[in-house]
Amino acid sequence: MKNIAILGFGTVGSGVADVLAASCNKICREIHDTVNVKYILDLRDFPESKYADRVVHDFDIILNDPEIELVCETMGGTKVAFDYTLRALNAGKSVVTSNKEVVAAYGKLLCDVAREKGVRYLYEASVGGGIPIIRTMKTSLGANEIYGIDGILNGTTNYILTHMKEDGASFEEALAQAQKNGYAELNPKADVEGDDACRKICILAALAFGAMIPQSLVSCEGISSVTLDTIERAEKFGGSIKLIASARRMKGEKVDISVAPCVVAHDNPLSGVSDVFNAIMLHAQHLGDVMMYGKGAGKLPTASAVLSDIIEAIKAGKGSEQETWNIADPGMLSDNDKVSDTYCVYVPTSFAASEEKVLALFGKAEIKFSEGSGFGFIVENISRSKIRKNLHSIDVKDFSVFRYVK
Amino acid sequence: MKNIAILGFGTVGSGVADVLAASCNKICREIHDTVNVKYILDLRDFPESKYADRVVHDFDIILNDPEIELVCETMGGTKVAFDYTLRALNAGKSVVTSNKEVVAAYGKLLCDVAREKGVRYLYEASVGGGIPIIRTMKTSLGANEIYGIDGILNGTTNYILTHMKEDGASFEEALAQAQKNGYAELNPKADVEGDDACRKICILAALAFGAMIPQSLVSCEGISSVTLDTIERAEKFGGSIKLIASARRMKGEKVDISVAPCVVAHDNPLSGVSDVFNAIMLHAQHLGDVMMYGKGAGKLPTASAVLSDIIEAIKAGKGSEQETWNIADPGMLSDNDKVSDTYCVYVPTSFAASEEKVLALFGKAEIKFSEGSGFGFIVENISRSKIRKNLHSIDVKDFSVFRYVK
Repeated sequence: MKNIAILGFGTVGSGVADVLAASCNKICREIHDTVNVKYILDLRDFPESKYADRVVHDFDIILNDPEIELVCETMGGTKVAFDYTLRALNAGKSVVTSNKEVVAAYGKLLCDVAREKGVRYLYEASVGGGIPIIRTMKTSLGANEIYGIDGILNGTTNYILTHMKEDGASFEEALAQAQKNGYAELNPKADVEGDDACRKICILAALAFGAMIPQSLVSCEGISSVTLDTIERAEKFGGSIKLIASARRMKGEKVDISVAPCVVAHDNPLSGVSDVFNAIMLHAQHLGDVMMYGKGAGKLPTASAVLSDIIEAIKAGKGSEQETWNIADPGMLSDNDKVSDTYCVYVPTSFAASEEKVLALFGKAEIKFSEGSGFGFIVENISRSKIRKNLHSIDVKDFSVFRYVK
Repeated sequence: MKNIAILGFGTVGSGVADVLAASCNKICREIHDTVNVKYILDLRDFPESKYADRVVHDFDIILNDPEIELVCETMGGTKVAFDYTLRALNAGKSVVTSNKEVVAAYGKLLCDVAREKGVRYLYEASVGGGIPIIRTMKTSLGANEIYGIDGILNGTTNYILTHMKEDGASFEEALAQAQKNGYAELNPKADVEGDDACRKICILAALAFGAMIPQSLVSCEGISSVTLDTIERAEKFGGSIKLIASARRMKGEKVDISVAPCVVAHDNPLSGVSDVFNAIMLHAQHLGDVMMYGKGAGKLPTASAVLSDIIEAIKAGKGSEQETWNIADPGMLSDNDKVSDTYCVYVPTSFAASEEKVLALFGKAEIKFSEGSGFGFIVENISRSKIRKNLHSIDVKDFSVFRYVK
C-alpha cells in the first residue's frame, strides 16, 4: 500500500480524492498496488466528508511520517506551497502539483532538489489542465528539437472571446457571464490580463528550451481591450481573435515569448478551439505540427492529470530521472517589439492614411478589406516597432496591430 | 554505446537513420548514451548511402550478434516481419515497429513474448504516424477508463475528402491527385476501402479495452461511394464528411467498432482536420474529451515516433513492464447495424416519402433541409437497421444514412 498526503482540500485536492476512489481498480492495475490517502492537510475541517478522519492541520505530521512516500500539493498560492514542497522533497518524498505559480517561480530549484534526493517533482496539471502536454513533451518528442509553441492556455479568456464572437456580447457582458458560470474569478485580473497564460507558457518554454524566463520579463497583453469591432475585423482578415501564448526559438540562442490577442487563421486548428477548451500546437523538428486539445481546467480533468503524475512517480520508484532546466540569462529573451513576423494592421481612413499611402510605405502589404471608416492589411516580415514607426511617419496614431498566426 | 539494427531500409527505415543522425546530440542527452546503427537488413544494396557498409542480407547475423539490444522493424508486410520480430524478441532483443499489420494481427502474441523475455515490443508509429497517441493512452490516462475513440486515422482518404469539398473534385479526380502527390498508392484499396483505418482502430481499441477484435469482424466501409452530393448535403446537416474510425464501450462488456464515412458536426474539432492530417478524439472518464492532431504519415514524422520508442526502450532497460491485451471473444463485438445512435438520413422525395410521412414514422426526427429532389433529417436514439426497416415499410429504398458525430 502506498500512502500519500493531499495538501489543500479545495477543488483540485478533493477531485484527486474523488478520482482515486472512483478509479481505484484501474489505478491498482497500473501500479500493482493500492493508494491510500492517509492525510489531508487543510486549515478547515470537513466533518461531513468521508475523509474527515484524515484531516490534519499540522504539516509536520506528514513530513515526519516515514510511511508517506508522496505528497500531492493542491493548495495554490506560492509562499506556503513552496515551503511545504521544498521540505517534502528534502525529506525524500516525491511531490506532484497542479500549482503553476510555484512551478513557474521555483520549478528549477524544486526539480534540482528532487533530482538530488532521487525523488520526483511532477507538474502535469500545471499547464493545460487535463491535456497531457507536459508528459508528451518529456517522452514523445525525444528526437525533436521544439522550434515553437502556440497555445490557448487560459479557458476563461477563451470563453469570453467565444461568447463575444458567437453572441455579440461586449467584453464586460461576456466576463459577467463567465463569472456567473464559475469560469472566472470575482477578481478576474490574472486570467483577463494574461498572467495565467504567461506563467504556463514560461513553464512550457522551460521544458522546450531548457531555460526558464522570468514571467516578469515577458511581453504580456490580455484581452480587456478586445472589442466587438476587433472580433469582426479578425473575420475579415480571415481568422479568429484568440489569446495566444507563444514561445519560439529565434536566431542564435535567443527565444521569443509573448502573450497577446492574435488573429488565428481559420485554416489553423487553434482557430476552432472554443469555450473553456485549451489547445497547444507544438512545432517540432521532425514531427512537424502536433496539437493537443482538451479541458484546460475543471475539478476532474485537473485531478486526472495529478493522478497521472502520482502513477508515474509510484511506477518509476526511487532513483528515476528528474528533468530540470536552467534559469535563463535575461539577454536570451528577444525584444518582442522587434521580432519580425506577419501582422494584421487596421488603420482608420484619413487624409494621411489612404490605402495608396500605406501600400507605398509597406511595399508588399496586402489589403484584406476596406470599410467606411478604415481598412485592414496583412504585412509579412516586419516588426511591431517598424509598423509603428512607418505609420507614425505619416501621422497615423490610432491603429491596431495583431500578430497573424497561420 | 547502444547498437541497433534496422530491418527494411525503405521510407520509414531510412527516416529512422536520418533522424538518428540529425538529432544524435538530443537523443544522446535523453538516454545518456549513443545509438549506433550497426546493421541494416534489406534485400537491396545501397552503394551510394553512407550506411552502405552496414547493409546485410541475412537476418541471422543480427539475431546472433549479442551486441544488438534492439531491432527496429520497418519492413512492412506481415509474414517475414512477424517471423523476424518473434525471433528477435525470443532472443531477448527489444523490437520497435511502425508495422500496423503485424501489430493488429499478432500484437498479443508479440507483447506476451516481450513480457516473458523482459524486453519491450513498442509500436507508437503504427497508429497516427507522428501523433503520440499510443504513449498518451498508456501513460497519461492511467486514472481513466476510455469510453470511446473517434479518429481520422487515414491521411489518404482525408486528403481525398478535403480536395473534393474544397475544389469540387470528383472522387476519381481527387484520388488521381492524391496518387500524383504521393499520398495514395497505385493500388489504393487498403486506404480507400477503410482497411488501413480499421487496423489502426483495432489497435487503439485493444489498448483502450484490453481486447483485440479481429479486423475481419469489424464493420468497415470506405469512401469510394462518397459523391459531391454527399459532401454538399453534409454541410446542410451542419457538418463535414469524414472517414471516422470509431470504438466505443457499450452496455455490458460489449464494444462497438466501425469505420465509415460520417457527418462530423462543425462544432467538433475533428471536422476541421483537413488534408493528410490525422486526429484522434478520446472520450475519457475523468478527463472528458481530449484530441491529438498531427501528421499521420510521412518519412520524418513516422521515424520520429519510432525514435520515441527506441528512446523509451533504451531508457527503460531490461525488465520494464510490457503491456499486452487479450484476444476478444467475437461475441464482445456489437452488431454495428443495431447500435443506437444519431444518424443523418437523406431521402429522395416521392409519393411514398414525403416529409410528413417520414416525420410520422420517425417521431422525433428533425428535418434539416429540403431540396428539389429530396430532404434530409437527423434522428436520435435509433439503429441503422430500424431506419432501414422504417423506410422499407413505406417502400423507400434509395436513401442514404450517415452517423452524426457531435
